Amino acid sequence: MTVTIQELAEWVRGELVGDGGQPIADARPLTDARPGDITFVEDAKYYSAWHASAASAAFVPTDAPVNGKPVIRVPDPLAAFAVAVQRFHARGSAPTAARIDPTARIHPSVFLAPDVTVGPFTAIGEGSRIGPRTSIQTGVVVGRNCTVGEDVILHPHVVLYDDCVLGNRVIAHAHAVIGADGFGYRSATGKHLKAPQLGNVEVGDDVEIGAGATVDRGTFGPTRIGDGTKIDNLVMIGHNCQIGRHNLLCSQVGIAGSVTTGDYVVMAGQVGVADHLAIGDRVTIGAKAGVHTDIESNNRMLGFPVTTYHEQLRMMAALRKLPAALALLKRLTDRFDSEEPAEGKDAA
Amino acid sequence: MTVTIQELAEWVRGELVGDGGQPIADARPLTDARPGDITFVEDAKYYSAWHASAASAAFVPTDAPVNGKPVIRVPDPLAAFAVAVQRFHARGSAPTAARIDPTARIHPSVFLAPDVTVGPFTAIGEGSRIGPRTSIQTGVVVGRNCTVGEDVILHPHVVLYDDCVLGNRVIAHAHAVIGADGFGYRSATGKHLKAPQLGNVEVGDDVEIGAGATVDRGTFGPTRIGDGTKIDNLVMIGHNCQIGRHNLLCSQVGIAGSVTTGDYVVMAGQVGVADHLAIGDRVTIGAKAGVHTDIESNNRMLGFPVTTYHEQLRMMAALRKLPAALALLKRLTDRFDSEEPAEGKDAA
Amino acid sequence: MTVTIQELAEWVRGELVGDGGQPIADARPLTDARPGDITFVEDAKYYSAWHASAASAAFVPTDAPVNGKPVIRVPDPLAAFAVAVQRFHARGSAPTAARIDPTARIHPSVFLAPDVTVGPFTAIGEGSRIGPRTSIQTGVVVGRNCTVGEDVILHPHVVLYDDCVLGNRVIAHAHAVIGADGFGYRSATGKHLKAPQLGNVEVGDDVEIGAGATVDRGTFGPTRIGDGTKIDNLVMIGHNCQIGRHNLLCSQVGIAGSVTTGDYVVMAGQVGVADHLAIGDRVTIGAKAGVHTDIESNNRMLGFPVTTYHEQLRMMAALRKLPAALALLKRLTDRFDSEEPAEGKDAA
Repeated sequence: MTVTIQELAEWVRGELVGDGGQPIADARPLTDARPGDITFVEDAKYYSAWHASAASAAFVPTDAPVNGKPVIRVPDPLAAFAVAVQRFHARGSAPTAARIDPTARIHPSVFLAPDVTVGPFTAIGEGSRIGPRTSIQTGVVVGRNCTVGEDVILHPHVVLYDDCVLGNRVIAHAHAVIGADGFGYRSATGKHLKAPQLGNVEVGDDVEIGAGATVDRGTFGPTRIGDGTKIDNLVMIGHNCQIGRHNLLCSQVGIAGSVTTGDYVVMAGQVGVADHLAIGDRVTIGAKAGVHTDIESNNRMLGFPVTTYHEQLRMMAALRKLPAALALLKRLTDRFDSEEPAEGKDAA
Repeated sequence: MTVTIQELAEWVRGELVGDGGQPIADARPLTDARPGDITFVEDAKYYSAWHASAASAAFVPTDAPVNGKPVIRVPDPLAAFAVAVQRFHARGSAPTAARIDPTARIHPSVFLAPDVTVGPFTAIGEGSRIGPRTSIQTGVVVGRNCTVGEDVILHPHVVLYDDCVLGNRVIAHAHAVIGADGFGYRSATGKHLKAPQLGNVEVGDDVEIGAGATVDRGTFGPTRIGDGTKIDNLVMIGHNCQIGRHNLLCSQVGIAGSVTTGDYVVMAGQVGVADHLAIGDRVTIGAKAGVHTDIESNNRMLGFPVTTYHEQLRMMAALRKLPAALALLKRLTDRFDSEEPAEGKDAA
Repeated sequence: MTVTIQELAEWVRGELVGDGGQPIADARPLTDARPGDITFVEDAKYYSAWHASAASAAFVPTDAPVNGKPVIRVPDPLAAFAVAVQRFHARGSAPTAARIDPTARIHPSVFLAPDVTVGPFTAIGEGSRIGPRTSIQTGVVVGRNCTVGEDVILHPHVVLYDDCVLGNRVIAHAHAVIGADGFGYRSATGKHLKAPQLGNVEVGDDVEIGAGATVDRGTFGPTRIGDGTKIDNLVMIGHNCQIGRHNLLCSQVGIAGSVTTGDYVVMAGQVGVADHLAIGDRVTIGAKAGVHTDIESNNRMLGFPVTTYHEQLRMMAALRKLPAALALLKRLTDRFDSEEPAEGKDAA
């Protein structure tokens, strides 16, 4: 694909300075750029490298000087560059050229919007609807009565169970599983009896779900993932969770059933959240934390059991001093013991 | 599927009160129930809602009053309801109507019992046996010499390696992997040499295995999962483990090789268990615990390193007080230091 | 497959004592061995069991006595046995006999070396190259421009994204995902904008990757896994990581982006490593540790936040004594309080 610099400027709503008619074939970082590429410069210290580079054009900050080569001025050059990269490197196509692979098992009742790509060895169940320009890659399974939005990319072997809903521009990476049964049982006469899992999963717009991540279906209603939330590899989201918008859930986070999160929540890697908790807006939770209590908005949390960041750091620092402190305490106690009978002496 | 209330009463061995001949088409919770549905009531406070609802029948406690609509009295109405839901919503069917999909790669030596469903893009290896009414869904791979019981559901892309055995009524969710090689190496001349993984996995009756969970094969003999045990998403069970009956292993639990567990063990999310340990019956282990030691039966455990629940709570409470205690200790020490030379003063 | 004892001795470069012409059909441990099998003996206390066993031959230590049956003397009998087991039990073959399954979607530009096996329902994208004797099993997806070495085994449903490189003798277990996009976003105007993920993954020789494990592609360059490194099930390796040679990464380890590790690093189960850290050679990290800092070579580490092993053990021991120590401190304070006004009294 080749586009003009003028078209690139329109993609990112930037200000074109210089010749907009030149064709650009790819977007590459400064160190790799070749003639015909657009690149980006974030910082004035790289201006001379950009001047010397083979790149034909660049996204630059709004206050960047010009040097004869065309530039597109934008508030955030890397963000603009990412847009260009994504357009140039769109991975929507299946390994073969067929738009609807002849091996795909698509139930006759399925609605496929224009420009949908369906790869080989895929199955789409009765009553499902697939939006325009969506890419269903090799081996993907979409259950019955699912609704998939526009410009969605389902990478190889993604599985959607029945009744699930994906918004627009959702990306699900290989082996993500959306809508498997929640882990709900009732114990009766010594057995764990499976509780009904009649709900579904509803995923908002612009959500990305990592490789091997799992989002379980609700018990009666939907498990929800809010618009713009990004979920990393091997994350587990339990049944009935209501995850807010623009959350960042890093790898191997586990969220038990019926948890709600606000908007702009960040959980670092391997955080665990117990069931039925409420996490407010803009809460940040440090790696490996174990959350057993509700958290109000705007808190930065850490540790297991989780506390505020500052309290946890104080506790961690104190724990490091504890062995020496116990020795000191023993010395004090020994003096006391010469005056009165001791109890708890073995503590130190 | 439509059944009579009389038949429903027989399914759950309940006491029918009222007209048993009426047809019932589905089971739905009270708030969603429509005419022709059976619902359930657990608590007397919902009796009036049930009386006012559109549902045609209900599972009710054994002491519930009647109101003209037929009821089925049972000791546990939700459990009975769950049985009905599962029967009405059995997900055994593949997206297409074919019982044995023409694309399925079934070795000529495979034995398929009556009423087996095999979905598209599946493979079943030489010498394997599949029990009656079992559902092998899209993309499932069953290796060689596997034995799969009755009424088993293997969701899309489940993989059974060679020689594995599944009992009756096992459910494995999408992308579960049963029988991959254990993580066993011997170091020789600076390399990790792969140890033989000649065993298999034997899964008991009524076991459920979550999406993306992995159970590794034994080194020489079987890794075993006992009857009725439920395993959540993304759980890892190492080679040679002998997991007892009716365990509940929550999401992202990791159990290293050669661990044995008793019956009715519960591990909350993200628990880790080191290799070669023995966990007794009815042990409950709190979320994120790290188990490095054997645990006797009937203990409730918590923390890393794991201790009894009460000891861990005491330690956690004490740690919260530690920063203030160190300040206090410093004050005491300062007084002593005015009388004698200090050592370890920097501890506080 | 049947080989002579002489051939077995050559496989493992051992010293044959006795009749090398006898045919051997399998390798089994002492307790299971039958006539026609080779077994192994590691310790003199098992010599009598070996003498009494039905096995036709054995791998034995270099100083083992002979007993009339042929033996192969080697420095490490189990290692030699493992070699024999792997040769006898090579799992390279697909469930059906076809070398290249007719359902496989192989782009015309793909280069397949001699003796490659490609299973059913597989896809290999444009420009990829597959080395000699490599086994691509059922449902595997290899993207575009991938390079796969010799004697590689890709178990069912492994997914390689575009541009990835696997060395020789790599084993990837079912559902491993290599090359999915890294978890990189830039926040702009309240949204998380996907950062370009233009790199790839390069996996060295003799690497094993567990079931469901994920290795993300680099942002601009490669994520690398060094020769001989073994990765267990459900491990996550973030984008841009440079993992050294002969590492052992146990189950559910999570390594965030841009981490480098030296050679012979061992991480036990559920370890987490924060982004952009450097871990030296021969570092061993205990289970569940949380690494937030660089670690120099030859250290043994434990805990969260991670410390040296000995410091962590001291802290853990001290914490166990803390509740009693706080009681003791309170007693001392109470005495002081009778003499002067207290502050921080509530600490104990």
